[in-house]
Amino acid sequence: MRITALAGGVGGARFLRGLRAQLDLVAPESELTVIANTGDDISLFGLRVCPDIDTLLYTLGGGVDEGQGWGRADESTRVQGELAAYGAVPQWFTLGDLDLGTHIVRSQWLAQGQTASAVTARLAQRWGLPEQRIRLLPMTDTPVETHVVLDEGETQRAVHFQEWWVRLRAEVPASRFVVAGLDRAAAAPGVLDALRDADVIVLPPSNPVVSIGIILGVPGVRDALRGSTAPVVGVSPLISGRPVRGHADACLSAIGVESTSAAVAGLYADFLDGWLVDPADASVRVRGVQTAVHDGPLLMTDVPATARIAESLLALAERVRT
Amino acid sequence: MRITALAGGVGGARFLRGLRAQLDLVAPESELTVIANTGDDISLFGLRVCPDIDTLLYTLGGGVDEGQGWGRADESTRVQGELAAYGAVPQWFTLGDLDLGTHIVRSQWLAQGQTASAVTARLAQRWGLPEQRIRLLPMTDTPVETHVVLDEGETQRAVHFQEWWVRLRAEVPASRFVVAGLDRAAAAPGVLDALRDADVIVLPPSNPVVSIGIILGVPGVRDALRGSTAPVVGVSPLISGRPVRGHADACLSAIGVESTSAAVAGLYADFLDGWLVDPADASVRVRGVQTAVHDGPLLMTDVPATARIAESLLALAERVRT
Repeated sequence: MRITALAGGVGGARFLRGLRAQLDLVAPESELTVIANTGDDISLFGLRVCPDIDTLLYTLGGGVDEGQGWGRADESTRVQGELAAYGAVPQWFTLGDLDLGTHIVRSQWLAQGQTASAVTARLAQRWGLPEQRIRLLPMTDTPVETHVVLDEGETQRAVHFQEWWVRLRAEVPASRFVVAGLDRAAAAPGVLDALRDADVIVLPPSNPVVSIGIILGVPGVRDALRGSTAPVVGVSPLISGRPVRGHADACLSAIGVESTSAAVAGLYADFLDGWLVDPADASVRVRGVQTAVHDGPLLMTDVPATARIAESLLALAERVRT
Repeated sequence: MRITALAGGVGGARFLRGLRAQLDLVAPESELTVIANTGDDISLFGLRVCPDIDTLLYTLGGGVDEGQGWGRADESTRVQGELAAYGAVPQWFTLGDLDLGTHIVRSQWLAQGQTASAVTARLAQRWGLPEQRIRLLPMTDTPVETHVVLDEGETQRAVHFQEWWVRLRAEVPASRFVVAGLDRAAAAPGVLDALRDADVIVLPPSNPVVSIGIILGVPGVRDALRGSTAPVVGVSPLISGRPVRGHADACLSAIGVESTSAAVAGLYADFLDGWLVDPADASVRVRGVQTAVHDGPLLMTDVPATARIAESLLALAERVRT
């Protein structure tokens, strides 16, 4: 079985780890292709940082800080202390020492002329993803960056997505998201094929606006989903209208969409076949989409709980296929 | 009093720390300008590393690892462990975590278009050099790199100076040194003025071939020394024909010069006025150069001992002036 997923950072990575665990039980030979959002990418101190790809690498590779869901376990910040001592800016984005190793080799390899896809594949090797039959692809090899236009009354000002998300904690209302470079970007090698050839296409409970929404903006991706003969099934990132983590509500509000599970499914309505929701959202109905209610809270509290969510989603995929 | 020094790494930095301590006792208002060798500079993992400037910063700024004489005190190598895990090369040059902070900000500032001089001045601020009346200048803002042509019998092969010095421990005989870019390099702003306007010019016991010798190759530097009206005095880097540390003998051998204190002074004979030697070398005579014997071993064992060497050298400068 070939499964293709779109994914952002923490939510996507946790879901996919549970999905892989479930697949290892029921279909160990299955191949999982992950198309990662790169709109969060940012250059800090001259180094290229890809937060979603790094979170996917560390989570799927067993090196993540489980508590915060991103960054490395057993992390330290000695280098960043030096950067601060030199007065280098910005200081609002924490780069741990172990994490910096990833940014340094990525930046070196990119500077040598390797594509983001090639660099990601090399990084994934170190984390043992090929042995797990996981193929991690950046959505595009073109550098793109999500910027946030802030709504500050009379004036409008755009900041990098990371500045809004991390420094401003998404508390300054966003009026819209602009992805610099996305219109000229091409899907990375393998991305459109992975959607075309998939047996199941999966949307983890990643942020529908700034993670999944950005990937859907890569030329060709949305068309590939619309044209897919495979079932496209997703996990709601909201429970009773609230995001389990992150600021999905602030992102939805910026694009004028209600913070409800139904409204999120509505964003995908042109290609979505099945939608898995929490028992609290059992009444959700979306035209043209088959809804399933998970037999427990839609919370990825640990790998076994997440594997059961994946099991529900795969069962839903089988139902919508027939 | 305005004192200008040429300097390499460990030996130069230790001597200058002692010189500054001595000046603080006898002439606290004096200004010390240090012209640093940049031929050792190397790009590693996409980061610009300037070993001699860093050793000068850390030593004069109180952050050096006293035991090894270079790198940072209380250092760790967590980032390099990650680089190794990713299979990034080379692995023969150790980059500590604290040290990496310097390389990262330097690389960022250079990539922003700042000159090596401007970057060095910013780094020096953090280490409190201006407060100590020390001005640290790279010899040139042009990227230059010392390469070593290895004598391997039938074949000749050139490696970066650091590879010869660090990885090969200078054990493979060198047939010559080639400084890529030096013929097109211009002295950095302030370098020639600092030589022209000095009251005393000082050569620390730095390597005469790959540290002092490289600085002398910067267009205009040797002529400025020859034309100087200020006394030019130096400290011998050899005692009884052996370098106190480093591989000066291997470097001298490569350029066909004897490993003796007299032969080293001979390399500077066209501009040198005074030469300070160890009691073991009391018989050294160099035509046109006034020799002085230090009243103790010429060993920079600690700051007070080094300050006494500086005291001898300044006294020698006064003698040759009159």
